[in-house]
Amino acid sequence: MTEPLLDAIASDPLTMGWMQGFPPPPERQVLWRRGDHWQFPKTRWAFSHFREILPSVRVEGEGSSPLPRRIAADLGHLEFTPLDATALMTLDEALLATYTDGILILHEGAVVYERWFGVTGPETRHIAFSMTKSFAGTLAEILIAEGKLDPAAEVAAYVPELADSGFGNASVRQVLDMTTAVDFSEDYTDPHSGIGAYSSAVGFLPTAPDYTGPRDLWGFLRTVEADGAHGERFTYRTANTDVLNWILTRVGGMSFARALGERLWHPLGLGEADVLVDPLGTPFAGGGLCLRLEDLARFGEAIRKGGEGVIPDMAIRAIRQGGDPALFDAVRYPALPGWSYGSQWWHSHGSDGGFSARGIHGQTLWIAPESGLTIARFASHPVASGSGNDPISVPLWQALGRALNA
Amino acid sequence: MTEPLLDAIASDPLTMGWMQGFPPPPERQVLWRRGDHWQFPKTRWAFSHFREILPSVRVEGEGSSPLPRRIAADLGHLEFTPLDATALMTLDEALLATYTDGILILHEGAVVYERWFGVTGPETRHIAFSMTKSFAGTLAEILIAEGKLDPAAEVAAYVPELADSGFGNASVRQVLDMTTAVDFSEDYTDPHSGIGAYSSAVGFLPTAPDYTGPRDLWGFLRTVEADGAHGERFTYRTANTDVLNWILTRVGGMSFARALGERLWHPLGLGEADVLVDPLGTPFAGGGLCLRLEDLARFGEAIRKGGEGVIPDMAIRAIRQGGDPALFDAVRYPALPGWSYGSQWWHSHGSDGGFSARGIHGQTLWIAPESGLTIARFASHPVASGSGNDPISVPLWQALGRALNA
Repeated sequence: MTEPLLDAIASDPLTMGWMQGFPPPPERQVLWRRGDHWQFPKTRWAFSHFREILPSVRVEGEGSSPLPRRIAADLGHLEFTPLDATALMTLDEALLATYTDGILILHEGAVVYERWFGVTGPETRHIAFSMTKSFAGTLAEILIAEGKLDPAAEVAAYVPELADSGFGNASVRQVLDMTTAVDFSEDYTDPHSGIGAYSSAVGFLPTAPDYTGPRDLWGFLRTVEADGAHGERFTYRTANTDVLNWILTRVGGMSFARALGERLWHPLGLGEADVLVDPLGTPFAGGGLCLRLEDLARFGEAIRKGGEGVIPDMAIRAIRQGGDPALFDAVRYPALPGWSYGSQWWHSHGSDGGFSARGIHGQTLWIAPESGLTIARFASHPVASGSGNDPISVPLWQALGRALNA
Repeated sequence: MTEPLLDAIASDPLTMGWMQGFPPPPERQVLWRRGDHWQFPKTRWAFSHFREILPSVRVEGEGSSPLPRRIAADLGHLEFTPLDATALMTLDEALLATYTDGILILHEGAVVYERWFGVTGPETRHIAFSMTKSFAGTLAEILIAEGKLDPAAEVAAYVPELADSGFGNASVRQVLDMTTAVDFSEDYTDPHSGIGAYSSAVGFLPTAPDYTGPRDLWGFLRTVEADGAHGERFTYRTANTDVLNWILTRVGGMSFARALGERLWHPLGLGEADVLVDPLGTPFAGGGLCLRLEDLARFGEAIRKGGEGVIPDMAIRAIRQGGDPALFDAVRYPALPGWSYGSQWWHSHGSDGGFSARGIHGQTLWIAPESGLTIARFASHPVASGSGNDPISVPLWQALGRALNA
């Protein structure tokens, strides 16, 4: 970026007029063929409209009743100190600083704070990005608890097609915890990284006319090669979740979207959602879920409350336990000291027991059982990686836990 | 086609295994980039999965309760005589002969017959194709009844962008009744026809790398030129409905998808639906609605019963009255003698008062008020035009009316 970034108010998608009018004027259009849906500030419109840009599949759900509300009128004035900052910031200021699109803060089961911005509202199915992975991880832990999936088994035992790929001899647990060692870089600022090739393969970006690479998620996975020994360290690679998706699909005999519907959406009473699909109709478990913020919060509440009879105890324990902090990538995540990644969830190992589903550009589900706290937040921060908002968001979640229990 | 067509049993999409397995084998894939979704017999899978192939937008609805059932056990054995045939055919035989995917026959408000085939079930959002137009026509008649849309006004009065197109000086009524005279041919067997160029423009088919034509629905409409005098005869051209969509959007200040939700889906209690969109996110009112068969039947019932307080009397009267049979295209529709097209509905002017929403490949909503009959039928007949199934379907609907009132 050469120009200074617009702030949250200046980049409000309604103010900017993206896709407003019939038709929107040419300079206010958001077009897939130009990759506009990845260009800030057009992202602030696109993240709430992804199924209008790409093919998707329905996650069948229920007509859910609203969560209870017990709004804390003054919570927006709550002050906290961002990382590496000296000045205090309020919750309301933090929402703008993180380009929040919507937030629900729940304490002991009731919504105590609720805000909406731009084109995002209660019925919007906003893209969850990599929070989707935590749903996949939860499905995996359910199957493990039911004895249907062996975390010690090798990937190739479930998906023989991956035997010759870098994933073939990794264990299911290594895939779940992203400690596989494969040649796939996830640098959102490098168009030649693994995630860039992947995005083209699955249709999230247009391909050049002379493109001859893989054309679907699973075809792409077969091209990923080994790069070192599995199990030695956590390295964040979305491709792990697509491998997990393939495994889950084989074990359960149904697509990720149908599994979400049958195992989570219907029993938890969540409203219908969408999952983006690749050209073969495969749901993008690595980041394609689009759902209502309140349904994200309900899912978090179910986990905070111990599974509500839908998610087995053993699965809840695995999620709450987290991964191995010794394997974490401390260099890449300076705002997450002592954290781990396990079962496709991020764990703080903090005194509030806080763990998190996280997606690029600020998507967050924060569950802190010891504080009785569940926070669901959609955002469209201009920086993809957590480094853009973690220095504000992480201390804010922790401060909210303290304040609401004071 | 050079090979004989597979019959309904041989072309059953489950039997053929389209898109079954994780991943489906290469020879069993249905891929947009090859235009597979328009190729029989792959269509038998695709018509029930269109949102997985193309971008779409949600029509918000309700969690609806099922229609009452009063199943008539022997109805499948009902015999009737197809047009130009000597041998009798039963209802059950007719369903196979017309490649039916699902059918609901309602008499006096209760489902008396229900069948599902292949990959289509009660929750499937099957594509409605041009039945979508009758929803648009109903929205238009609602706005006319409310005094918000003047059927005598010229198109250009509502959409100045179309002033220089062939549609500019047509009246809203001529657009509604498809008596405009423009240079747009709708021959589904000719890839160079207007509908072919249109399909490429809106993304329903891939474009060649050197394509430089319009890239969205409304851009395409501006390129359609005049060809004769409006009002002299009915000629079926989908582009009329997209013009109508543009007008409705301007008058109502909301998209077609949102108008469906607010004016029909929520008040009638229909379940969530999808509408395919063009690259600008414009819902395809000419043929992009994907909905549950039971919701199609509910819509038909609402019209049969006089609008249920949701659709004004004046709009119901306009729909039930039909168009001018003298302007009909008797040559093109030999199976529809004496019919007319009005308000985006097809009218038989028969003694049972039967009128119909119709879409290519056999999509049908048949409403016969004098027989107390509403029939909703999804199909994937290999022939796009009604000539493929009308010789069976039309006499069948009429025979059902007689039998159920005998």
